[in-house]
Amino acid sequence: MTKDTSNQMWGGRFAAGPDAIMEAINASIGYDQRMAAQDIAGSRAHAAMLAKSGIITDSDAEAIREGLLTVLSEIESGNFAFSTALEDIHMNVEARLKEVIGEPAGRLHTGRSRNDQVATDFKLWVRDQMDAATAGIEALIKALLAQAEAGADWVMPGFTHLQTAQPVTWGHHMMAYVEMFARDKSRFEDARRRMNESPLGAAALAGTSFPIDRDMTAAALGFDRPAANSLDAVSDRDFALEFLAASSICAMHLSRMAEELVIWSSAQFRFVTLSDRFSTGSSIMPQKKNPDAAELIRAKIGRIFGANTALLMVMKGLPLAYSKDMQEDKEQVFDAADNLMLALAAMEGMVKDMNANRPSLEAAAGSGFSTATDLADWLVRALNMPFRDAHHVTGSLVAMAESRDCDLPDLSLEDMQSVHAAISADVFDVLGVHNSVASRMSYGGTAPARVREQVARWKEILG
Amino acid sequence: MTKDTSNQMWGGRFAAGPDAIMEAINASIGYDQRMAAQDIAGSRAHAAMLAKSGIITDSDAEAIREGLLTVLSEIESGNFAFSTALEDIHMNVEARLKEVIGEPAGRLHTGRSRNDQVATDFKLWVRDQMDAATAGIEALIKALLAQAEAGADWVMPGFTHLQTAQPVTWGHHMMAYVEMFARDKSRFEDARRRMNESPLGAAALAGTSFPIDRDMTAAALGFDRPAANSLDAVSDRDFALEFLAASSICAMHLSRMAEELVIWSSAQFRFVTLSDRFSTGSSIMPQKKNPDAAELIRAKIGRIFGANTALLMVMKGLPLAYSKDMQEDKEQVFDAADNLMLALAAMEGMVKDMNANRPSLEAAAGSGFSTATDLADWLVRALNMPFRDAHHVTGSLVAMAESRDCDLPDLSLEDMQSVHAAISADVFDVLGVHNSVASRMSYGGTAPARVREQVARWKEILG
Amino acid sequence: MTKDTSNQMWGGRFAAGPDAIMEAINASIGYDQRMAAQDIAGSRAHAAMLAKSGIITDSDAEAIREGLLTVLSEIESGNFAFSTALEDIHMNVEARLKEVIGEPAGRLHTGRSRNDQVATDFKLWVRDQMDAATAGIEALIKALLAQAEAGADWVMPGFTHLQTAQPVTWGHHMMAYVEMFARDKSRFEDARRRMNESPLGAAALAGTSFPIDRDMTAAALGFDRPAANSLDAVSDRDFALEFLAASSICAMHLSRMAEELVIWSSAQFRFVTLSDRFSTGSSIMPQKKNPDAAELIRAKIGRIFGANTALLMVMKGLPLAYSKDMQEDKEQVFDAADNLMLALAAMEGMVKDMNANRPSLEAAAGSGFSTATDLADWLVRALNMPFRDAHHVTGSLVAMAESRDCDLPDLSLEDMQSVHAAISADVFDVLGVHNSVASRMSYGGTAPARVREQVARWKEILG
Amino acid sequence: MTKDTSNQMWGGRFAAGPDAIMEAINASIGYDQRMAAQDIAGSRAHAAMLAKSGIITDSDAEAIREGLLTVLSEIESGNFAFSTALEDIHMNVEARLKEVIGEPAGRLHTGRSRNDQVATDFKLWVRDQMDAATAGIEALIKALLAQAEAGADWVMPGFTHLQTAQPVTWGHHMMAYVEMFARDKSRFEDARRRMNESPLGAAALAGTSFPIDRDMTAAALGFDRPAANSLDAVSDRDFALEFLAASSICAMHLSRMAEELVIWSSAQFRFVTLSDRFSTGSSIMPQKKNPDAAELIRAKIGRIFGANTALLMVMKGLPLAYSKDMQEDKEQVFDAADNLMLALAAMEGMVKDMNANRPSLEAAAGSGFSTATDLADWLVRALNMPFRDAHHVTGSLVAMAESRDCDLPDLSLEDMQSVHAAISADVFDVLGVHNSVASRMSYGGTAPARVREQVARWKEILG
Repeated sequence: MTKDTSNQMWGGRFAAGPDAIMEAINASIGYDQRMAAQDIAGSRAHAAMLAKSGIITDSDAEAIREGLLTVLSEIESGNFAFSTALEDIHMNVEARLKEVIGEPAGRLHTGRSRNDQVATDFKLWVRDQMDAATAGIEALIKALLAQAEAGADWVMPGFTHLQTAQPVTWGHHMMAYVEMFARDKSRFEDARRRMNESPLGAAALAGTSFPIDRDMTAAALGFDRPAANSLDAVSDRDFALEFLAASSICAMHLSRMAEELVIWSSAQFRFVTLSDRFSTGSSIMPQKKNPDAAELIRAKIGRIFGANTALLMVMKGLPLAYSKDMQEDKEQVFDAADNLMLALAAMEGMVKDMNANRPSLEAAAGSGFSTATDLADWLVRALNMPFRDAHHVTGSLVAMAESRDCDLPDLSLEDMQSVHAAISADVFDVLGVHNSVASRMSYGGTAPARVREQVARWKEILG
Repeated sequence: MTKDTSNQMWGGRFAAGPDAIMEAINASIGYDQRMAAQDIAGSRAHAAMLAKSGIITDSDAEAIREGLLTVLSEIESGNFAFSTALEDIHMNVEARLKEVIGEPAGRLHTGRSRNDQVATDFKLWVRDQMDAATAGIEALIKALLAQAEAGADWVMPGFTHLQTAQPVTWGHHMMAYVEMFARDKSRFEDARRRMNESPLGAAALAGTSFPIDRDMTAAALGFDRPAANSLDAVSDRDFALEFLAASSICAMHLSRMAEELVIWSSAQFRFVTLSDRFSTGSSIMPQKKNPDAAELIRAKIGRIFGANTALLMVMKGLPLAYSKDMQEDKEQVFDAADNLMLALAAMEGMVKDMNANRPSLEAAAGSGFSTATDLADWLVRALNMPFRDAHHVTGSLVAMAESRDCDLPDLSLEDMQSVHAAISADVFDVLGVHNSVASRMSYGGTAPARVREQVARWKEILG
Repeated sequence: MTKDTSNQMWGGRFAAGPDAIMEAINASIGYDQRMAAQDIAGSRAHAAMLAKSGIITDSDAEAIREGLLTVLSEIESGNFAFSTALEDIHMNVEARLKEVIGEPAGRLHTGRSRNDQVATDFKLWVRDQMDAATAGIEALIKALLAQAEAGADWVMPGFTHLQTAQPVTWGHHMMAYVEMFARDKSRFEDARRRMNESPLGAAALAGTSFPIDRDMTAAALGFDRPAANSLDAVSDRDFALEFLAASSICAMHLSRMAEELVIWSSAQFRFVTLSDRFSTGSSIMPQKKNPDAAELIRAKIGRIFGANTALLMVMKGLPLAYSKDMQEDKEQVFDAADNLMLALAAMEGMVKDMNANRPSLEAAAGSGFSTATDLADWLVRALNMPFRDAHHVTGSLVAMAESRDCDLPDLSLEDMQSVHAAISADVFDVLGVHNSVASRMSYGGTAPARVREQVARWKEILG
Repeated sequence: MTKDTSNQMWGGRFAAGPDAIMEAINASIGYDQRMAAQDIAGSRAHAAMLAKSGIITDSDAEAIREGLLTVLSEIESGNFAFSTALEDIHMNVEARLKEVIGEPAGRLHTGRSRNDQVATDFKLWVRDQMDAATAGIEALIKALLAQAEAGADWVMPGFTHLQTAQPVTWGHHMMAYVEMFARDKSRFEDARRRMNESPLGAAALAGTSFPIDRDMTAAALGFDRPAANSLDAVSDRDFALEFLAASSICAMHLSRMAEELVIWSSAQFRFVTLSDRFSTGSSIMPQKKNPDAAELIRAKIGRIFGANTALLMVMKGLPLAYSKDMQEDKEQVFDAADNLMLALAAMEGMVKDMNANRPSLEAAAGSGFSTATDLADWLVRALNMPFRDAHHVTGSLVAMAESRDCDLPDLSLEDMQSVHAAISADVFDVLGVHNSVASRMSYGGTAPARVREQVARWKEILG
């Protein structure tokens, strides 16, 4: 980067130039150059509007708009010398524009300020990330739907407290994550709708006396409308915080699924085999195949929620309107967005590649007295026993089976009748895991038919 | 609380009773009794559905539903002996129901589980808080609108970096907060819509084999539909997290306004006078009048976002479905909700009561070369100067005024022309603060006419 | 609580009394009554010093000190009517003291203020919690040492990525937690040392003109010295933040151990059996035995770090000296301290009661090619092979064993020599899990002899 | 970076190479190259020890140690081609070492693993940052001491609730920050002592069967001793968390001072003038001089505590020993350390450069009835009035002065006696601000003599 003193930007007021520490803490060009395309799009819209509104001439506007395209192509091709002394992307672009087109460049900043400019650029950038998150989630959901459809009737243990509770189906388990990620998607969509108001033209904080047309720039940039209060427009970072909050919840869902994949990949569980593409080896233990991608995805919630914490803490207690504290917004959001997109893509890849180990799943589903609830429900249905009594009878039968080191279906009818005389042989119909899952036909239940309905519903929704 | 051993609940399986530490860490009745009304509403809906679906008799259902009303009235009147041994509100209510109506009580828990029951209760509770937040925000917005309307044309300094930047109107500043809180309101409304699906009937995690009608219970409890996946229904706490995330952003807005009120109340600013009702004195300094309510409101973001942090951390990496970790959800949300509602009410009260000190505001608005931007804009408009050049000329004029310890309007025309010859006497028209704010007529700008438009728009929206 | 208006406390300055919202947001007596003993100890020390310094008479001091004991015994016996109108514990105690002893009560507040009083009380309270944490950790370490000693040579799998890596000993695994908790202990001890300076006598913020003796009160309250700057003394909450930070790291260690206990208790692992005392059953699944205590301990990091987040956010950007925001400090620390102590006690109880399942552990330790590293190391040692080459040879042998569905020791010498000709029969000596752990004699290694050394060292340290 | 497939590192086990997403989520070389010097120092110490212990030959060790210096100089001079396929700094260095010295390079990794290697490197890096923080804080303290010494008797208002409470001295206010930062320094020193144990030789997790000498490598790297448990050594990140926790509290102190500087720089306060070096101008408002550095420092607490949040969340619930989640540790600590050091340096610079505006400070100190407490104390001392009564009398006098729009010293003796007859003319001696501060001679009080004592004490301590 070139090292021109940034003094020149602020006019003649400052006797001394900022020193190295100040430059280091103050300059944002090191990261905000990621918003170059957004900055140039905003400036091009602004220039067109200034001409349309009669504030600058058409030819100046045209020179500016063309010049900005030149600058953009320099940046995109890597042939742009960013200068720290020029502090940020906005000043870097404008300074280069002046070199390219000369005097008309000085007319671009009419009726706006860096405050509304940075808010506009950052909103456009975040809006793109909301769309990227939506797309990434959709792709992950489709991968989950494919797993669910294939395994709609594969039986596995349903856990609570990581203890076998009742048999469920693989498809049902996959569909639980579809519900979670679908909520994430709708959260990003709501956030996008709420934030889609243009700050451009709010100027420094008070609006402007130039007869600008904020509807025109809003429309050109894909905003639904201009923001209605200029003070708010330049000091609002809700859109970034809401993006981070939605990302944090999404990352939480990813962490839960990743945790399951790590546990399921253990030698003790062997529920799934992850592909080599998403595993790594060990430098010292040649036999290992580690679920690294799952672990890294599990960890991403840390930095994403860390970014949320960081930005909320920055915004706490800031008086209106713009304060320089707010410059800390971008790095947090950039990092969180990059990592969320990466985690979604990695999870999508893992889900696509992973193989459920059906025999392990089915064997585990049947152990641990997993159909005790079915037995209790049978007592209620067949013998009209109050549920709480049925629960006690079942508890005694489980204790009996446990003491004999056998499973419930291994008890004889006589054994059962010794606990409750009215139990009949029909009871054995409900004790198998396949019977169990097939019977749970309540809406949202784990029965294969229910799972297939949900898969169909979501395929329809996603188109 | 009575100290029956809780052993009896889990049937005969456990040889030893949990000891005191376990009871202390495990029991939730100390706080989840706040969900008594929700628990009973859920159980009454469930009982009605069980009868309608032919799972229990009409007379049993009637006994249950009446008995639950009795229990509710005992709780509401304070005549209910909560038992820690019975762990939670669900078991306390059911145990008392059994005392009141006998055997039919044991049939209530058919086709459901504590997992879907607690999810239902908690969702109903959180949904009420979303409504309370919406109402609290509306009341605060109305108080802000009243201030904005009264002071649509009162002039005050608009700050950036807490330095005087440009004059704005009091009404405009108030309306900035209206925009912020209106976004908060829409955030709670979106969250409510997203979460309004009934977990009831998801049972432990897999659904049930009883022919229950989840649509019926969903409708009875005001849900839009039953949740579509039973595993998700019992392990989802997104609604609580989204409530906390929305509350955190709202608390951030409150903290910004509170900070301003603290600063504005200082002897150095004297921009506002807070009412005695929202101030306190000092035990040692009799002359003090402290903005305690503002400070306490400013602080609330801490515990509200602390609760968000707490619950997200709890949920990180939890395998499906229910884990006991999730019991930590309620105290965080209870505390955050209580404090958000309190902070909103206190802010509403303060805003209603506070008096803007118009002379101080106006005096401050005019100091600090606050109309330098107006001068620069005039140079652009009147002399067709590029903005960047106008900025430099203005900087020189400010430096001249500063060196003479006077303000911009105090410079003579000759002084001005010594910096730039083409400046004419018209320039003095834009240097007064009232001229300045009146000129900022761009949409969203600070001009009194614009402020009044926005006040009218919001009054229309809020009805 | 009685509802006297709190107006009377602040003298005649306020025309209007604070209304209900203000009282609700402002009063702290609902929670700060937990500091009653600390408040009274501080006041008794202060009174003694005032007399010794000749500021009040000996008889007044004696009346105050006796009267405070009376108040304390009323509070401890539950016979004290706390008043919300009197806001906090300090005013409640002083008001009652006045009722008990009359006029001399009014002399107690000489040379101090609520600001230094609350700082003193809170420091004393937090200091007690630091001691409690230290004691709780020591008890837990002793429970771990007992497990480690018993199982110094029990073999279990050492995991990385939850994949079997190398065999380790049960004792070694327990001792890893001893190291972690010992660091926690030293962190609390350092924090205690750092915070042990008395704020008493800092008065409101500037010190006092009364000839008080701060060394005397510091000594009476067990402080090492008086705090050296009165502004800092009343606005410092570092001690609370450092307690929360140390508690958060300790809670993180607890969460890791709790996670292991949950996983180890699963049907798939069966590494440990938790006692019934620290498990619970299910309302619907009679067969379940859930590791609830472990899950609740795992979750405690949420609220403890949530409290850390809350208080740090509150303190961010507060100008000196005292601001009312700081009143939010106590509830966070109270809750975090209560939950940390509970979690430590519950973990201690679980560790004492738990039974390692030695056959499961040993079987798991030997599977998954867990001695592949031993093989690689043998190749380095016996054949002088560079480690990286040995790693490749071992990888090939593992692949061979895997393709034959056997373990490394099941390969024949010929098989091995087909991969690398120089391998000799000695290699089989290092492939057994007992040989493996016994061989890891490097300092800090898993060899039983090393574990026993460490157990002995810690027993010596803890006395 | 070169794009060799990283497959080759893990030996022959993997059929498919990791794809682009996996590489993106898995590789750490993009950031962990910052630990190159630490990595090479650790490897050089390890090689020397391997030779001394007879595990490798002296000539191999010498080749390795020399070769590593060559690699280091390549890296330091920027002539090193980092490869993403080689994942991390450890493999990049080792691969290059092999190119440089050939076969002996393969012997370096004997008796260690990437797990202990990365722990060692990272600990060395963090230890350096602890030292840097200590140095940065010392420099800042010295700047504060210079301000305190110069202004030991400059009078300014002492605030509580941002309301004038009592006069204090500028030096006293500066010294409050000295106390805070001195605690920060001692926190880093304690953390350094606690963490200074060497992980090297813990190997993957179990120690090693090679006869390594961990004391030797520990000493060579400046550690106090080797870590006592190999499982803990590779899975411990307490040192990073404690660094972040201490940094967060330090950043909180910085945020408080920065907030004061922002407020004090406002046109309304004018308490200080910041130098141009640490201020910036506005692109649209030529008259502005913004305290940007103070604002940016104020904001740093966000990202530093965000990093703390991130890493604690990552570590939550991780089973032993190493999990890949832990790879997320470094970027958080790097960013927090960089920003803490920058903020400390910027604050030091600002403090050195800033000018207190003595007339403004003194004028503000005397307004707002700031010596009301002195009056109350005089009533206690001179008239032997109980403090609570004196407080009421003072309140009445303040109300009288306020109603007459004058200050306390402006009341006549008759006015005063109309409130309390015993008041004598001596009272006027305590009402001036200089009398007030001089009188507060209690230890830690604001009297200039006390301030100078503290300055002297700290100069002595810092040497």
